[in-house]
Amino acid sequence: MMQWYFVAALLTILTSSQGILTTLSQSHGKYNYDYATVPFLAEVFKLLVSSFLLWRECKASPKPRMTTEWKSVRLFPIPSIIYLVHNNVQFATLTYVDTSTYQIMGNLKIVTTGILFRLFLRRKLSNLQWMAIVLLAVGTTTSQVKGCGEVSCDSLFSAPIQGYMLGILSACLSALAGVYTEFLMKKNNDSLYWQNVQLYTFGAIFNMARLLVDDFRGGFENGPWWQRLFNGYNAITWMVVLNLGSTGLLVSWLMKYADNIVKVYSTSMAMLLTMVLSVYLFNFKPTLQLFLGIIICMMSLQMYFAPPSPLIDTPVTVKALPENLNEVSVDRATDS
Amino acid sequence: MMQWYFVAALLTILTSSQGILTTLSQSHGKYNYDYATVPFLAEVFKLLVSSFLLWRECKASPKPRMTTEWKSVRLFPIPSIIYLVHNNVQFATLTYVDTSTYQIMGNLKIVTTGILFRLFLRRKLSNLQWMAIVLLAVGTTTSQVKGCGEVSCDSLFSAPIQGYMLGILSACLSALAGVYTEFLMKKNNDSLYWQNVQLYTFGAIFNMARLLVDDFRGGFENGPWWQRLFNGYNAITWMVVLNLGSTGLLVSWLMKYADNIVKVYSTSMAMLLTMVLSVYLFNFKPTLQLFLGIIICMMSLQMYFAPPSPLIDTPVTVKALPENLNEVSVDRATDS
Repeated sequence: MMQWYFVAALLTILTSSQGILTTLSQSHGKYNYDYATVPFLAEVFKLLVSSFLLWRECKASPKPRMTTEWKSVRLFPIPSIIYLVHNNVQFATLTYVDTSTYQIMGNLKIVTTGILFRLFLRRKLSNLQWMAIVLLAVGTTTSQVKGCGEVSCDSLFSAPIQGYMLGILSACLSALAGVYTEFLMKKNNDSLYWQNVQLYTFGAIFNMARLLVDDFRGGFENGPWWQRLFNGYNAITWMVVLNLGSTGLLVSWLMKYADNIVKVYSTSMAMLLTMVLSVYLFNFKPTLQLFLGIIICMMSLQMYFAPPSPLIDTPVTVKALPENLNEVSVDRATDS
Repeated sequence: MMQWYFVAALLTILTSSQGILTTLSQSHGKYNYDYATVPFLAEVFKLLVSSFLLWRECKASPKPRMTTEWKSVRLFPIPSIIYLVHNNVQFATLTYVDTSTYQIMGNLKIVTTGILFRLFLRRKLSNLQWMAIVLLAVGTTTSQVKGCGEVSCDSLFSAPIQGYMLGILSACLSALAGVYTEFLMKKNNDSLYWQNVQLYTFGAIFNMARLLVDDFRGGFENGPWWQRLFNGYNAITWMVVLNLGSTGLLVSWLMKYADNIVKVYSTSMAMLLTMVLSVYLFNFKPTLQLFLGIIICMMSLQMYFAPPSPLIDTPVTVKALPENLNEVSVDRATDS
């Protein structure tokens, strides 16, 4: 059995690579391929991998547990439906707010995930863990604060109220999709691969439908999506697809054997890692706020995951100063 | 007996007022009076108040405990000497770095205070408290990150290495003065007022010497300091003096009955309070980083002072989801 933190670390690295690879796959800041085809192919990749693993599992004994009744299967398109709604809310939000503000508001999803995790999955968190979650959101936001001299910063938080309401809705939907997926994966002891096959079948169908809707909207002027599926693809584009598919498989694993909070930490750390790598790879200017954000997120990580007892144990006080220094010291634990 | 947190709150309010009053005491961004006279008069004010309180204490019974031997008294000019050295280091630092960088580096003193507090006073802190101290420094720094459109930000952290070394030295000296004062105040059961009288007598002498040295350097072209002591003073200038004196008295109290970390929290919170009040009073533009800094510092406050047990207790998990959701959940306390 893989340890969850190994999977989480791998997810961090792959998610971070995703940002770098996507940037590298562009030429002169533009995509030579239709980006909408990437998530579809990633779903197909995940479906193929999961089907193969399920098939291998079926050959072995004991047979994998598979619930095939419609009552259960019908729950698996729901995450895809939530993502579909989320994409449209995201689109609507961006008509009100600029991308910087949208990116900043995206950190709200860390907090909404914590709340829905508590409300829907009934998982209790200690006060320290709640503080850690808020700090993670604060840390990622800090790293994104625009430095001086950067463009389009006057517009930050000057959008109409609808923009912020939609941003909050977007954060809730994103959290809901995650929490619902965790519920699906954990609701019974079904084989992970069987659950994946159901999840990704619907994922592939919804992504295909999206490509088709885009074609209808564009009046088929570039031809149907299946004719231009691999147009402009090169080696890096395929790496983007495989990388996105792999991160998806790792997320599924985490949803079953770890939880949404682990996933949120992984992806937040990935964002910071991407920013650090961008300093080296793309000559981005490192900012003080990136450095501060990293410290805050590391503290948050420690607060959330470290075993609590060593965290609060104070080493035995050594009497070292003359006379009664220790007597007059403040007893905080009882006073505050 | 006053509770230490009441004194700490009062110190926060008065320290914050100090910033506001000092700004109000200027006209057109300039001082009409010699600012160097303010700390001197504040020392005299503290000396007068402490002498009066000591005199009153001497009339009552039991008599206050007073150690008058030279072996003890000779320790009391040391904080003044450290501050003198600190002022000169500060001056030297500012020849290398700009004031923004100096202000940012000033937050290091929070961490150095924690370290010297541990090393010299041998006071043990839990890991959580160490994390809280680092977060306090990170939070105050975050609130000071220059927003976009602000001037003189390209120069941030582009100073020669000497500037940073001196900045670190400055943070160490500042911490040393605080920690040494705490040692002085707690080393025996002497009356607080008697300790204050010794401390402020030397404080007044050293400040007077500084005014005299300034006069010599300036070739007495404005006359000796005692002739122009109250030049340009108005009601607000006097409030600045009384306020500075009062904060000094509160700090002395905290050094004896609480500690340096309480003082550091008070003054850090005061800095944030000043920034928030400046938004209302001086129409400063509130920044996202100020908001983030406040959240970080509040979390840090909670982490440092809250009784640890309620912080880490997880409420009993309610079995709410079907089948075995709780079985497959990750046991972090042992895994991480």
